[in-house]
Amino acid sequence: MNKQKTILSGIQPSGKLHIGNYFGAMKQHIAMQEQGDAFYFLANYHTLTSLSDGNLLQENTRDVVLDYLALGLDPDKCTFFAQSDVPQTTELAWILGTLTPVSLMEKGVAYKDKVANGLSPNIGLFTYPILQAADILIYHSDIVPVGEDQKQNIEIARDLAGKLNRAFGDDLLKIPEEHIVKSVATVPGVDGRKMSKSYGNTIDIFDEGKSLKKRVMSIQTDSKALEDPKDPDLCNVYALIKLFADENTRNEIADKYRSGGYGYGHAKKELLGLITDYYAEARLRRKELEKNPSYINDVLTEGGKKARLRAEEVMEPIREATGLFRSFKY
Amino acid sequence: MNKQKTILSGIQPSGKLHIGNYFGAMKQHIAMQEQGDAFYFLANYHTLTSLSDGNLLQENTRDVVLDYLALGLDPDKCTFFAQSDVPQTTELAWILGTLTPVSLMEKGVAYKDKVANGLSPNIGLFTYPILQAADILIYHSDIVPVGEDQKQNIEIARDLAGKLNRAFGDDLLKIPEEHIVKSVATVPGVDGRKMSKSYGNTIDIFDEGKSLKKRVMSIQTDSKALEDPKDPDLCNVYALIKLFADENTRNEIADKYRSGGYGYGHAKKELLGLITDYYAEARLRRKELEKNPSYINDVLTEGGKKARLRAEEVMEPIREATGLFRSFKY
Repeated sequence: MNKQKTILSGIQPSGKLHIGNYFGAMKQHIAMQEQGDAFYFLANYHTLTSLSDGNLLQENTRDVVLDYLALGLDPDKCTFFAQSDVPQTTELAWILGTLTPVSLMEKGVAYKDKVANGLSPNIGLFTYPILQAADILIYHSDIVPVGEDQKQNIEIARDLAGKLNRAFGDDLLKIPEEHIVKSVATVPGVDGRKMSKSYGNTIDIFDEGKSLKKRVMSIQTDSKALEDPKDPDLCNVYALIKLFADENTRNEIADKYRSGGYGYGHAKKELLGLITDYYAEARLRRKELEKNPSYINDVLTEGGKKARLRAEEVMEPIREATGLFRSFKY
Repeated sequence: MNKQKTILSGIQPSGKLHIGNYFGAMKQHIAMQEQGDAFYFLANYHTLTSLSDGNLLQENTRDVVLDYLALGLDPDKCTFFAQSDVPQTTELAWILGTLTPVSLMEKGVAYKDKVANGLSPNIGLFTYPILQAADILIYHSDIVPVGEDQKQNIEIARDLAGKLNRAFGDDLLKIPEEHIVKSVATVPGVDGRKMSKSYGNTIDIFDEGKSLKKRVMSIQTDSKALEDPKDPDLCNVYALIKLFADENTRNEIADKYRSGGYGYGHAKKELLGLITDYYAEARLRRKELEKNPSYINDVLTEGGKKARLRAEEVMEPIREATGLFRSFKY
């Protein structure tokens, strides 16, 4: 195995990605491919817990791959693959499940939320933390960059790795480090709440033309008049401008807010220009990539092969130690 | 696929098999290999829910294979393999889990028993019926011969197959027939309770010599004197004799019981001779097989290959319909 630290992150193939995804995760993913042996997977088994439309999942998968590649993810620098292309994941998940008390899953936040809302969740959702643990552990991941909300699940992965090692042999699984990413930037949606697909308040990265303009123009602001001085730090438009503008531009625009005579319409136009420029190169690259659909397939095929080989290095000694017969190798 | 009906049955690799296993299941397995396209698998993933000793599981697996082959299971007539050699099983189990309400598993008999006894079961035990459903459905099994106690789990398999078909497309999974085997014979253990490894009251099929004699001599009887007439139908020794003797011998021995002057010691000696003769040929065959450990491996390797091919025929359209990316074939 590689001497570099292994970094693992999962990506939900939930369709076209938005600028909240970009500043919240994608940008870091693309940066981290230079900082270690990065494994990025499309968490399509997880998506099945809430989606049952095969065509849509396929389309979403394709879109996410296109978005990442266009934005600079380099499949030669990292291992980029689909979860469903690594069969060792559900195999390890089953084994981990035999070591997981039911009571541990009952403490799961996502599960408790559902139950509190009177819903009967499915077993996929209930045992989601086990599959997530398998996702992490099957590559001997060192570092799993996650947000604060995923802290519990990383703890479960560490816990289950320890249980398996104690039951069947030290060092079978590596205990991953916790690595909480303090959200670099809060990205507000057009309604001011956190940008999220489920709120319908997103601005998609690769939106353009009239459609993008309409989204940007719909950002909610207060009703101060054009001539009034405004506080940029209270404005959703400015919060987005900060993400895209360099320091000089940021300061210039903040000054205009404060001096008055500068309306939200002006700020939105400025933001529109900034977004368009920021993603201009990526947008071109995406259009090129779209012309060659088999390339997406090739990238995932190649990534899957690398991921399975690594997973097999981890899984083989576990099969041996648990006494599970296996006649073939990946 | 084969036009014959597909018969599926799982075998717990729980060590050396006893005559309760033989008359309760193995004999039927061996007969059914002539009656359809039989798939018999060693349920080693299931065993992990209660066993965490890799060497023991490996040894148990080997012993069960040896026992079956010695007794007449023919790997050319059926598909004989290890559950852990068919990765599509845990893959399908995950997908079925996303369609299984948690409440359905909470009704599981084995789970409820544990909880009633104040134990916290593991997720493997809790979701056992889902893996069992995957075991059945992944081969498009038509017939699943099970005892009355497994009725609930077959119902769950039928239910989950229907759910997946409704969510993603008709005919993706075949709804298996229920096929309850009325226990052909109740096999008492040496203490008179049902013969079972967990009661420690077994007589192993391939036990022999002094050890077998000691087991047979330890069968519990009432304390009637040698000269008393006895009722064969109330005697554990006679219940076992019935399984091994032909009709003439059975009747002769029953007459001796009734006429008196025939003691339990005589009956036990008779039983010892009958068991020894019944398995004589198989015992020789087992000794031959033991000399060639790589043969066991070859049989499971060959069986695994056949099973994976069938499983892939079933799994491929499911991946397609659910939108799960897969770059390779088994």
